Amino acid sequence: MTQDILTNESAAVDVAALGEQLLGRWADIRRRAREIAGDPKIQRIDGQSMDEHRQRVFTQLSDLVDAGSVHRAFPVALGGEDNHAGSIASFEELVTADPSLQIKAGVQWGLFGSAVLHLGTEEHHAKWLPGIMNLEIPGAFAMTEIGHGSDVASIGTMATYDASAQEFVIHTPFKAAWKEYLGNAAIHGKACVLFAQLISNGVNRGVHAFYVPLRDENGFLPGIGGADDGLKGGLNGIDNGQLHFTHVRIPRTNLLNRYGDVAPDGTYTSPIHSPGRRFFTMLGTLVQGRVSLDGAAVAASKVALQIAVTYANQRRQFNASSPTAEEVLLDYQRHQRRLITRLATTYASGFAHEELLAKFDGVFSGETDTDADRQDLETLAAALKPLSTWHALDTLQECREACGGAGFMAENRFTSLRADLDVYATFEGDNNILLQLVGKRLLTDYGQEFRKLNAGVLARYVVHHAEKVALNRSGLRQLAQTAADTGSERRSANVLKDPQTQHELLTDRVGSMVSEIADALRAVQGRSQSEQAAAFNEHQQELIDAARAHGELLLWESFTRALDEVADQGTRTVLTWLRDVYGLGLLEKNIGWYLMNGRLSMQRGRTLSSYINRLLARLRPHAQDLVDAFGYGPEHLRAPLATGGENERQAEAMEYYRRLRASTDAPLDEKIMVAREKAAKRAAKSK
Amino acid sequence: MTQDILTNESAAVDVAALGEQLLGRWADIRRRAREIAGDPKIQRIDGQSMDEHRQRVFTQLSDLVDAGSVHRAFPVALGGEDNHAGSIASFEELVTADPSLQIKAGVQWGLFGSAVLHLGTEEHHAKWLPGIMNLEIPGAFAMTEIGHGSDVASIGTMATYDASAQEFVIHTPFKAAWKEYLGNAAIHGKACVLFAQLISNGVNRGVHAFYVPLRDENGFLPGIGGADDGLKGGLNGIDNGQLHFTHVRIPRTNLLNRYGDVAPDGTYTSPIHSPGRRFFTMLGTLVQGRVSLDGAAVAASKVALQIAVTYANQRRQFNASSPTAEEVLLDYQRHQRRLITRLATTYASGFAHEELLAKFDGVFSGETDTDADRQDLETLAAALKPLSTWHALDTLQECREACGGAGFMAENRFTSLRADLDVYATFEGDNNILLQLVGKRLLTDYGQEFRKLNAGVLARYVVHHAEKVALNRSGLRQLAQTAADTGSERRSANVLKDPQTQHELLTDRVGSMVSEIADALRAVQGRSQSEQAAAFNEHQQELIDAARAHGELLLWESFTRALDEVADQGTRTVLTWLRDVYGLGLLEKNIGWYLMNGRLSMQRGRTLSSYINRLLARLRPHAQDLVDAFGYGPEHLRAPLATGGENERQAEAMEYYRRLRASTDAPLDEKIMVAREKAAKRAAKSK
Repeated sequence: MTQDILTNESAAVDVAALGEQLLGRWADIRRRAREIAGDPKIQRIDGQSMDEHRQRVFTQLSDLVDAGSVHRAFPVALGGEDNHAGSIASFEELVTADPSLQIKAGVQWGLFGSAVLHLGTEEHHAKWLPGIMNLEIPGAFAMTEIGHGSDVASIGTMATYDASAQEFVIHTPFKAAWKEYLGNAAIHGKACVLFAQLISNGVNRGVHAFYVPLRDENGFLPGIGGADDGLKGGLNGIDNGQLHFTHVRIPRTNLLNRYGDVAPDGTYTSPIHSPGRRFFTMLGTLVQGRVSLDGAAVAASKVALQIAVTYANQRRQFNASSPTAEEVLLDYQRHQRRLITRLATTYASGFAHEELLAKFDGVFSGETDTDADRQDLETLAAALKPLSTWHALDTLQECREACGGAGFMAENRFTSLRADLDVYATFEGDNNILLQLVGKRLLTDYGQEFRKLNAGVLARYVVHHAEKVALNRSGLRQLAQTAADTGSERRSANVLKDPQTQHELLTDRVGSMVSEIADALRAVQGRSQSEQAAAFNEHQQELIDAARAHGELLLWESFTRALDEVADQGTRTVLTWLRDVYGLGLLEKNIGWYLMNGRLSMQRGRTLSSYINRLLARLRPHAQDLVDAFGYGPEHLRAPLATGGENERQAEAMEYYRRLRASTDAPLDEKIMVAREKAAKRAAKSK
Repeated sequence: MTQDILTNESAAVDVAALGEQLLGRWADIRRRAREIAGDPKIQRIDGQSMDEHRQRVFTQLSDLVDAGSVHRAFPVALGGEDNHAGSIASFEELVTADPSLQIKAGVQWGLFGSAVLHLGTEEHHAKWLPGIMNLEIPGAFAMTEIGHGSDVASIGTMATYDASAQEFVIHTPFKAAWKEYLGNAAIHGKACVLFAQLISNGVNRGVHAFYVPLRDENGFLPGIGGADDGLKGGLNGIDNGQLHFTHVRIPRTNLLNRYGDVAPDGTYTSPIHSPGRRFFTMLGTLVQGRVSLDGAAVAASKVALQIAVTYANQRRQFNASSPTAEEVLLDYQRHQRRLITRLATTYASGFAHEELLAKFDGVFSGETDTDADRQDLETLAAALKPLSTWHALDTLQECREACGGAGFMAENRFTSLRADLDVYATFEGDNNILLQLVGKRLLTDYGQEFRKLNAGVLARYVVHHAEKVALNRSGLRQLAQTAADTGSERRSANVLKDPQTQHELLTDRVGSMVSEIADALRAVQGRSQSEQAAAFNEHQQELIDAARAHGELLLWESFTRALDEVADQGTRTVLTWLRDVYGLGLLEKNIGWYLMNGRLSMQRGRTLSSYINRLLARLRPHAQDLVDAFGYGPEHLRAPLATGGENERQAEAMEYYRRLRASTDAPLDEKIMVAREKAAKRAAKSK
């Protein structure tokens, strides 16, 4: 490991090379997207009214069409590039221009267009994709209802097939079945992909997708109504709204029939026999939303940290260590704790996102598109999206506070980015529900590993490791032996910074948590549904904790793999410290678990926090390089507090005081005067 | 303890009586303030432009004058009531109408008016207070500068006395000394209380306050300029702005001279000889801002929880335990963890705030107004304000997410309250800096306790306890003895729910952390300033952690004292569980410390989380009562999602499905059909 070779002094970050690595496999596309996002024309104007903002974003969508930046995912035959991952990389970068634009573009091309592409067949593609691509048909993705968001299978909207007319009758049977929170629904949507229960010949075939025209130049088509959701906590450039349908008739062929079709006589056929598997296959296209939110959240965290670290490197307050010069904020330990730990997590999230995008590319390009691959992709996205979106909110807030009142000014970006990204935590899959899905998958894999011995791909991430760790438990036991810890604090810390040790500790925790829950649930197998549900509920908090721990382990692994890609030794040294801050930070956060389960000794546990503090101090001189490597320019940051004004003001003030001290006019500080008077009195007395 | 007498079944909350207790000593004033806050005329209209919102809030200030609700803190002789704590209680409740109104009123009467009242003398009162009270003189509180916020002593604005003209010359020597973020500065302010370095006869007497006219009907007076801060992350009903002064002359008598005066010849006199003590005395009036932010933050947390718990008691999603009925959100363990733990902290914060307000009343009414009292009040406010403001942000966000997409709609209040309260974490004292102040005070008290043996009042909270605990360490040791824990999990939990045990564990942690830091700092005593500063910085994170732990202990103590005031046994039982959730939650959060320092055994530690989960399930049926006791009506909550629409929609949907099942038209679910077909095939085969 290079950190053993290089001394701290010689470690330096090659910012350009690191920046290139961070741009990743789709670097050229990201560069182009950043160029577009750097254009004021497609950036947000703070303080616009909701109506102005909505109109501006809608116009910007056309700019994106003109810039050729939103068709990558569509078929080559229709003017696209069949490049799904590249398309997502491009979308993600839009978040620096305006999250409303990112999400509105995501609704149009990533959800609405994508549903036609992936759930429809060639006839549908030819008929509607050109208009969707060039924005002649702005559309909504009508899945969520007032009554059902996370539980899509239970939506109430019905599409009943009428064989006599060869039409589907779309109907909203009650208020809770109104479609809700749909982008493009309130104003701009001319059509939608509607999700409804398909009923034909008296059988409910479950949720299917239909292409439904919504509006012509006169407004809603007959039988269709809706409402405007109005003002939201953020993303007010998007016209979210509600839709309802009263016996609206659409042609039979408007069923997007890739995974399920209805013949003229009403006969239902599907290439997927199991209704459950069919449902999840159709919902599978949703994964790209989660992938792109993950990437956008990482981008927002990077922007926030690039602003806040830059400011923390300039701003001074209080003169603890010298009578005249004030401290730079980032020299305070607390400030390092606040910003550099989050920088470590952001790096981990960024590397993990790059791997997620590669996995997504494998599946959507068809290169590695087995059922198992799709399931792994979904679990991976479900594990990463909650962590990165929550991390972005936490980072934006901490950066905001770390910049004080200046951080609260809209012009400095934190507050509006935070307001917009707030909903990333619950849309495209509620974070808690996604983590629960991950937890269920871990339980399934755990069962498979030990019962059928045919572990899935994802199981490698955890259960396989857990098994290895179990075999190797003696190593962990050593970590836990107080008797073996009689050495120095430094030696204790050395053991913890060994990546193999970090990995085993992180992996063992996930494996142990999962196996404990599995054991508890196994005890109620075969009991009634309600008893099993109650038992599951009693472990819900633990299961979500385990899923989070699993996600954190994945981030650690991605970060560690990325270290191998770093050519420059100095950069690798610094990034290894940063990885250690991330990994040891996870141990510190969960130190209670490690102690209670005998995985770490008390002595070793006690060294953790101070060792992390020392790592932070060691990273501090490199913090600016590490945020500069994110590569966002002033056109993306657009935060006056990070553009040098602070330095100029300080220089002016310091020059003023320097001259004043040099002049004869300088007022005497009362405290000094009082001290002199006292000294004079003492002198007089002693005479 | 009643929880041993009552069974879970018989425990019930007397909502009316508990509500009365929560209203506290200033119940009548709070009731009147809530009545005013319930008037749509003074409530926020979402989606207004910044200009409209600013104008509306300014008009609302007059409404508050007309309602007679903002003069309580002023002298009886001038139409006030000399009721400082009552005045704050009233201000706090305004947060439910619009935080912008609360803070703008706070600027006008709580900061600007209050500075004239507390730093000025009778002549100033007679001259300016009537106009300040009736809003003829809207004014700013010009303390913070671009270059210095937390470090007020270092501000750059100068007030140089010119004896020949008997005037002060107010001057801004450089850009960093521009006054910044001042409410009322951008538009409405006609005057300000300005903080500047007072220089007379060549001596800088430190920061003093001056009354400075700003604008007449034609705008800024000669020599005065400024800028509008424009859009902020929230509180956009307030016209924050910058001010600068170029050799602006004001009469000598505009010095607010209660704590320092300049005679016509320039001779400076002050009743407080020490410049340091004088500075902190003048800044002492700032404490009321911190007190009222603490109360407002608690109020906002209550509003958020009353909305989110009501929704969680109605909203259903997923049918885990039955084929037809969906679960109510609050029945999910994870949802209980998210909301009821925060409910416990909110109760703790509310009880602690009531005690803070009583302490404030003692000092500001003059009843218990010694130097020690003032210092204790300041430390108490500095400990509580960070905890409650961060808790409010956390609670608003968790409630927002717990309500999903509906929580993101502006009409449901969470997002706009969160945006407005964001800055509460850094203004009127940055939370981290306040906690550092508390930490320093703890260190001082620690030193006094052990060296001089004359502990201050606040020391009682911690060091005294720590001493007792130290004497009684054997009890704690028992808690830590694994050997003694061979009993059941239930018995382990029983020990932890003993309030004496909780108190000792919480107190011991604070005391131990403080003494460890003190020992480390003692080692560098006598070294150079920079070495001492470096050593202090190496323990900054720990010191802030200790201060936070101290604040949490104070909350626990207030909650526990409040239990004694509960007359109804059922209510006391439920509240005792809630206090245990708070107290044990603190142990759970810091379980690593308790284990590493041998205060809890691993076995006992392992019982903690599951015991808390059981407590949450026990509290779950009382959650609605506990939020209803906050007493906010629909006119304060104003959140459609909590007003029963959810129940109505569900009833309609359930009725629809009930009828459908009863009819002959009900479509057959494909899953059931598939199952029947399989059964039929098996039957055919076996024939």
